[in-house]
Amino acid sequence: MSRTIIVGGVAGGMSTATRLRRNDEHRDITVFERSGYVSFANCGLPYHLGGVIENREALLLQTPESLNDRFNIDVRVLHEVISIDTAANTVVVRDLATGNESVESYDDLVLAPGAQPFIPPIPGIERAASLRTVEDLDHIKSLVSPDVKTAVVIGGGFIGVEVAENLQHRGLSVTLIEAAPQVMAPFDPEIAILLQRVLEQNGIDVRTNAMVTAIGEKDVTAGDEQFPADIVIAAIGVRPDAAFIAEAGITTAKSGHILVDEFGRTNVPNIYALGDAVMKRDFLDGSDNPLPLAQNANRHGRVIADVIAGRPVTTRPVFGTSIIGAFGFAVAGTGWNEKRLQAAGREYRAIHTHPINHAGYYPGAKQLALKLLVDPATDAILGAQAAGEAGVDKRIDVILTAMTGGLTASDLADLELAYAPQFGMAKDPVALIGMVNDNMVAGEKTIQWHELASSELPLIDVRTPGEFEAEPIPGAVNIPVDDLRERIEEVRELANGGPVVVFCRVGLRGHIAIRTLAGLGIEAINLDGGYVTWEAGIASQK
Amino acid sequence: MSRTIIVGGVAGGMSTATRLRRNDEHRDITVFERSGYVSFANCGLPYHLGGVIENREALLLQTPESLNDRFNIDVRVLHEVISIDTAANTVVVRDLATGNESVESYDDLVLAPGAQPFIPPIPGIERAASLRTVEDLDHIKSLVSPDVKTAVVIGGGFIGVEVAENLQHRGLSVTLIEAAPQVMAPFDPEIAILLQRVLEQNGIDVRTNAMVTAIGEKDVTAGDEQFPADIVIAAIGVRPDAAFIAEAGITTAKSGHILVDEFGRTNVPNIYALGDAVMKRDFLDGSDNPLPLAQNANRHGRVIADVIAGRPVTTRPVFGTSIIGAFGFAVAGTGWNEKRLQAAGREYRAIHTHPINHAGYYPGAKQLALKLLVDPATDAILGAQAAGEAGVDKRIDVILTAMTGGLTASDLADLELAYAPQFGMAKDPVALIGMVNDNMVAGEKTIQWHELASSELPLIDVRTPGEFEAEPIPGAVNIPVDDLRERIEEVRELANGGPVVVFCRVGLRGHIAIRTLAGLGIEAINLDGGYVTWEAGIASQK
Repeated sequence: MSRTIIVGGVAGGMSTATRLRRNDEHRDITVFERSGYVSFANCGLPYHLGGVIENREALLLQTPESLNDRFNIDVRVLHEVISIDTAANTVVVRDLATGNESVESYDDLVLAPGAQPFIPPIPGIERAASLRTVEDLDHIKSLVSPDVKTAVVIGGGFIGVEVAENLQHRGLSVTLIEAAPQVMAPFDPEIAILLQRVLEQNGIDVRTNAMVTAIGEKDVTAGDEQFPADIVIAAIGVRPDAAFIAEAGITTAKSGHILVDEFGRTNVPNIYALGDAVMKRDFLDGSDNPLPLAQNANRHGRVIADVIAGRPVTTRPVFGTSIIGAFGFAVAGTGWNEKRLQAAGREYRAIHTHPINHAGYYPGAKQLALKLLVDPATDAILGAQAAGEAGVDKRIDVILTAMTGGLTASDLADLELAYAPQFGMAKDPVALIGMVNDNMVAGEKTIQWHELASSELPLIDVRTPGEFEAEPIPGAVNIPVDDLRERIEEVRELANGGPVVVFCRVGLRGHIAIRTLAGLGIEAINLDGGYVTWEAGIASQK
Repeated sequence: MSRTIIVGGVAGGMSTATRLRRNDEHRDITVFERSGYVSFANCGLPYHLGGVIENREALLLQTPESLNDRFNIDVRVLHEVISIDTAANTVVVRDLATGNESVESYDDLVLAPGAQPFIPPIPGIERAASLRTVEDLDHIKSLVSPDVKTAVVIGGGFIGVEVAENLQHRGLSVTLIEAAPQVMAPFDPEIAILLQRVLEQNGIDVRTNAMVTAIGEKDVTAGDEQFPADIVIAAIGVRPDAAFIAEAGITTAKSGHILVDEFGRTNVPNIYALGDAVMKRDFLDGSDNPLPLAQNANRHGRVIADVIAGRPVTTRPVFGTSIIGAFGFAVAGTGWNEKRLQAAGREYRAIHTHPINHAGYYPGAKQLALKLLVDPATDAILGAQAAGEAGVDKRIDVILTAMTGGLTASDLADLELAYAPQFGMAKDPVALIGMVNDNMVAGEKTIQWHELASSELPLIDVRTPGEFEAEPIPGAVNIPVDDLRERIEEVRELANGGPVVVFCRVGLRGHIAIRTLAGLGIEAINLDGGYVTWEAGIASQK
């Protein structure tokens, strides 16, 4: 009977194990998991901390016993694989309870060791906890005694934001410290700031551009400030947990991530890898992408189990779809963001809209921020981001699916999405942003929020006088959209033979204005996303 | 200056008018609307009836004045186009306030007259109200005085269900009478029954297979029963409002729907049509499809405005995506349903699943019913339906987008959808149903709920003994999935050399069971969708 050894018993490892059993009843499948738990809900850990998930047991989806009963899988927790002999097809396993080591043979080896929190070399860092395993969760819970009032969370990524939210739910006074200019690096600054504001509105003290230099007994130093910190959580990022793997001659990237092909195969025959420890292939340029996200671990587990069992299988590169929610607000994205496109020197078109998630006349409509990044040469969708209180996940999932299916940005305009007033708009936000793109393909021009300050063109605010006064952009003249025809000579004078920039609150009236002006012989450029995008963008730079 | 006349000023007509203005500042655009209101929220009308939308003004999105101010469009309400002279390029318009008639010339004519409620020839039908316009809404509101306690709604389609829900919200005792064996014809019976149950749980008396034969002063007769009815609403369907159109030599279908090409062009040059009065081209077989839904009217308005203005434009056929919500429960679908596939004699594979909308350990997870219809020869997605309290719209929109992009059913398995525990599953319901499909492509067999009664194969319930007792399927033997390996000889005896049928609650343990049994040499067939689909299907036949 052939034997498959799987290193790591959470998302990727366990998906592989159970699929492999369904593929092959007659195989010895052994899983070694270093922690004391398998198949636990790692994405749920922060929410138990805050009491959102009340019952700790709810996080423990399977046990070694349940996996053995149902799948005849030999799961050994507290067992760490410490070395691989790729010539002998063996691993050395240490029983962490007894310290005993044993040699185990395999026919196929699947590496899903995950990643370890990165611990930066800051004085006092030993006091910082991190959150990756059930043991980590139990440890943090043990720290949060009733006399613990303050917390500093270092790192404004997924786990940092989730932990900050949940410590706040627990009644702590929380400071979130991020070294970069923004929280949530996967998103662009004018989108990420929206989440930052929600965190702040809910009482979290968010500090960006702040580098922690020391952790004291009761505080954390960043820049020239001290922040009170009865407890400290480090959530700076993760590193692949794979030192023993490189030593075995398995090719890894400089970062330590294992390199695999599209079927999860390493450079060594019969050795596969997946999950947070491996590089994934990027959909746009085929580059290596670490992307430590659960849904990829799960789908790659299925792929590897099928490859091992000899089932035909295809797989796609990764788009990097992700979502985070905090205090009822969500931010999601897929594909490349604008920062990355800029850094790579790629041509792109950016479109911002602020539609509502469902018909405005139906109670409860919420405004979204939606951003689309498009290849101007091919009209291919390069990426998308969305933020808001409702309907965020749906729009990103639809755009991800469109990208997967090879639809262009203008194709979004013609999607026949489900419509009833409590679920969407007759022109859904996704269709609407496709229409905006289509208008740009036809020649309409926009200017981005970060380009406005250096523009020397006349600026016309086409909102109402009340809006003009309440939320101004410096240097603008107010001519409401409905007055443009009768006040066209004023516009002509302002334009002085050249183009003008117009803006409204979210870009829709601006669009109508530039069409009206074009018809009257004046070239006009719309401020993309209107005042709302501009204001968020400017705020993100402060 | 060329002139475009548009007949009808709601979704399709007004989308055409405003887009046309944005395309061309120098065109005379005149809209004739027979009712007293333009651009009103027709999809919102039922919700004002029930007080969900409190403010009637919220439904009136635009006025002739606001449309003139912003778009320089000449909108005339209470004006009915009564005839077309296609040789002279003129229409005769009647001013409904004065009765005066005038002749108006056009260069282009756009027909968006909508549809009228169908009024069946039932004795007493003159007492029945219908709901299509703001005037209809006001009329029904005037009927619902404090001493009105009971209502009968005739017709269990979109408007019938929405009106029934809202009259119930208003405190009336409501009977909903549907002549067909199920409510909500666009969905298959085992899905539609889920909505019917929600209506019933919320106090609506739903009668299917019930033909109304008479409407009395205080009741409605259907079959041999009388139902109390202080008021009666007829919501049996709509017919195109287009008699004057056929008389003008514009080709219509037998049903009266105008026939147009993919660009909205009728057989007469410079005459276009869209909205509820036209036939749309079906995505699967190109057949004519009336499909009176708002999102198509809106996108076709944009297409026609672009065609008239000479802008390049492409358009897609219709999938028939629709959604309805009532009492917090939603049902949505796209593409063909199983009934239609059966009637057309097309080969298909049906898959039912009952996943939860987000991670089960995160509070508030709701069970979905999801159904996928697949072409077994090409793996193309033919249709999908979903029902549940949350996440229904997202899944149907994702599948519609996949269909639009030409993804196959198995491609769904590899979609990198956004995942965090409050938004989805690491294996999202859409990905999961793709995986089930992929397993079937690989040879796994299922039996449908409606095939079980005529199956003579041994039936094994692989749930727990508690589930087996609580929710039985007649004739089943209980062998829990976790016991299959040790009780394999019992299974072998039952199988007697042939296949067995297995089932669990939703199909997942059944899938594991058939893989285990296959590995042990016993062919097994899974009851698709498990007990939950079977129970709903059987109930829908009663």
